[in-house]
Amino acid sequence: MKLVRFSIGGGAVRPGLVKDGHVLALEDLVPGAPSDMKQVIAEWDTLSPKLEKATAEGVALGDVRLHAPIPNPEKIMAIGLNYADHVEEAKSAGVTAPESQIWFCKMAGSINDPNGDVEKPKSSEKLDYEVEMVAIIGKGGRHISKDDAPAAVFGYAVGNDFSARDWQLKTHQWVLGKSFDTHAPIGPCIVTADEIGDPHRLAIKCWVNGELRQNSNTKHLIFSVWDQLEELSQVMALKPGDILFTGTPGGVGMAQQLFLNPGDVVRCEIEGLGTIENRIVAEA
Amino acid sequence: MKLVRFSIGGGAVRPGLVKDGHVLALEDLVPGAPSDMKQVIAEWDTLSPKLEKATAEGVALGDVRLHAPIPNPEKIMAIGLNYADHVEEAKSAGVTAPESQIWFCKMAGSINDPNGDVEKPKSSEKLDYEVEMVAIIGKGGRHISKDDAPAAVFGYAVGNDFSARDWQLKTHQWVLGKSFDTHAPIGPCIVTADEIGDPHRLAIKCWVNGELRQNSNTKHLIFSVWDQLEELSQVMALKPGDILFTGTPGGVGMAQQLFLNPGDVVRCEIEGLGTIENRIVAEA
Repeated sequence: MKLVRFSIGGGAVRPGLVKDGHVLALEDLVPGAPSDMKQVIAEWDTLSPKLEKATAEGVALGDVRLHAPIPNPEKIMAIGLNYADHVEEAKSAGVTAPESQIWFCKMAGSINDPNGDVEKPKSSEKLDYEVEMVAIIGKGGRHISKDDAPAAVFGYAVGNDFSARDWQLKTHQWVLGKSFDTHAPIGPCIVTADEIGDPHRLAIKCWVNGELRQNSNTKHLIFSVWDQLEELSQVMALKPGDILFTGTPGGVGMAQQLFLNPGDVVRCEIEGLGTIENRIVAEA
Repeated sequence: MKLVRFSIGGGAVRPGLVKDGHVLALEDLVPGAPSDMKQVIAEWDTLSPKLEKATAEGVALGDVRLHAPIPNPEKIMAIGLNYADHVEEAKSAGVTAPESQIWFCKMAGSINDPNGDVEKPKSSEKLDYEVEMVAIIGKGGRHISKDDAPAAVFGYAVGNDFSARDWQLKTHQWVLGKSFDTHAPIGPCIVTADEIGDPHRLAIKCWVNGELRQNSNTKHLIFSVWDQLEELSQVMALKPGDILFTGTPGGVGMAQQLFLNPGDVVRCEIEGLGTIENRIVAEA
């Protein structure tokens, strides 16, 4: 199944299901369905059989506005240097292949809609893009083994880990450079894990103003999604709706000192997950 | 005023006001008062005049259990190496005085009660303490100048930035070592900013099993609380109930390779803000 959060003509934002090019509100399909996507995910085992059977009137996808499928995650964790070609292009900055998983985070306030405007901050001259497959936690938990990890993931989406490189490298801690407001667009939907199967075989691409800049496949992840859940859950309980940015392939702007400016359009696409597209605007 | 979250005999956790050694539930003082502390803070301008006038029956502080005053912050930001004596003791590890503010974060799931048990993780042999004054954001906002920063802070509390040093130093990014579940106890209450005035003149102390280990004053902060709000709000909107750990003074265990073990008791005290005390337990 494909889940979205959507609104029509400036109305309320509601969770919905995508079917045959139409969006069906969960509350129309199953009266009393939660309005919070984290709760939808938490109650999925009881909700999904009802959703499969239900019917309701839908609205054409072209007539709705899509919002971030999860606007309020408890946490957004992100792994650095997780594609070999991205490590290679960063070597001139002294980077070598990681022996351990390098985790940082994007603060939750950075979440943005799949087609939302992304701000070039007043205080940054080095705004950059990073297409990433995003994993959404379902059952989650603590001390999840690699073998048990697939059952702990709810689904996948496309994400862009926008990064203010000057702030990222201002100190040795990356979090500020990764956490500007609007810098974590995700979407367009959450594709449930059963539709994807093995997530380590998906083409992943990013264009800037129509020019292909990143072009790889999730089979090139250094640490798999399952490795990632095992590592993180040693530290913290993973919870329904938590978001993991699973790494970006080579081709980021920093490698060529090419940064984004207002008016630029960044498009990210992952096989089976869809497309998000964000226009850069000057921070007001 | 002093705000807490409290429960009686395993009952519901509610926000309350501390007066003359008693706790008064906000909902008893002002019918319809929010049950979520972030909402209490967001509505403070209209709520506080009503609270000042109201009376209700209280429960003796000794008869309640205190909980983390904010259990679900959108973000917990924390600044590293922000006391000169802490920089000095870390010099053997190659640390020098920071030119810029070094920000990291503790993930929100690490929040713990002021007297909650703190887990020594199965996967860590280097559990350490760090007493810190914690600032709680009130109005918040973006691009807050140093001059406007005092008006953006709601209040202050005591925090302990428990750290798994082996995980903190496993890679160059600190977030995992700072974010184990239970590793961010805060409390015992939020003292509103008007009661504290200038927060840069408070004695700050930490004892382990009765032995004084950290003993300083917030006047020794390298970057003031106002500096901190100015820096952070260039990046992200600060929101009601966001938590800032403002730095720890010298005397942490790592400097002497003395780490915490189950049974140890860590007590943190800040002048005017109160005391939190946490027992170390083995992760189950």
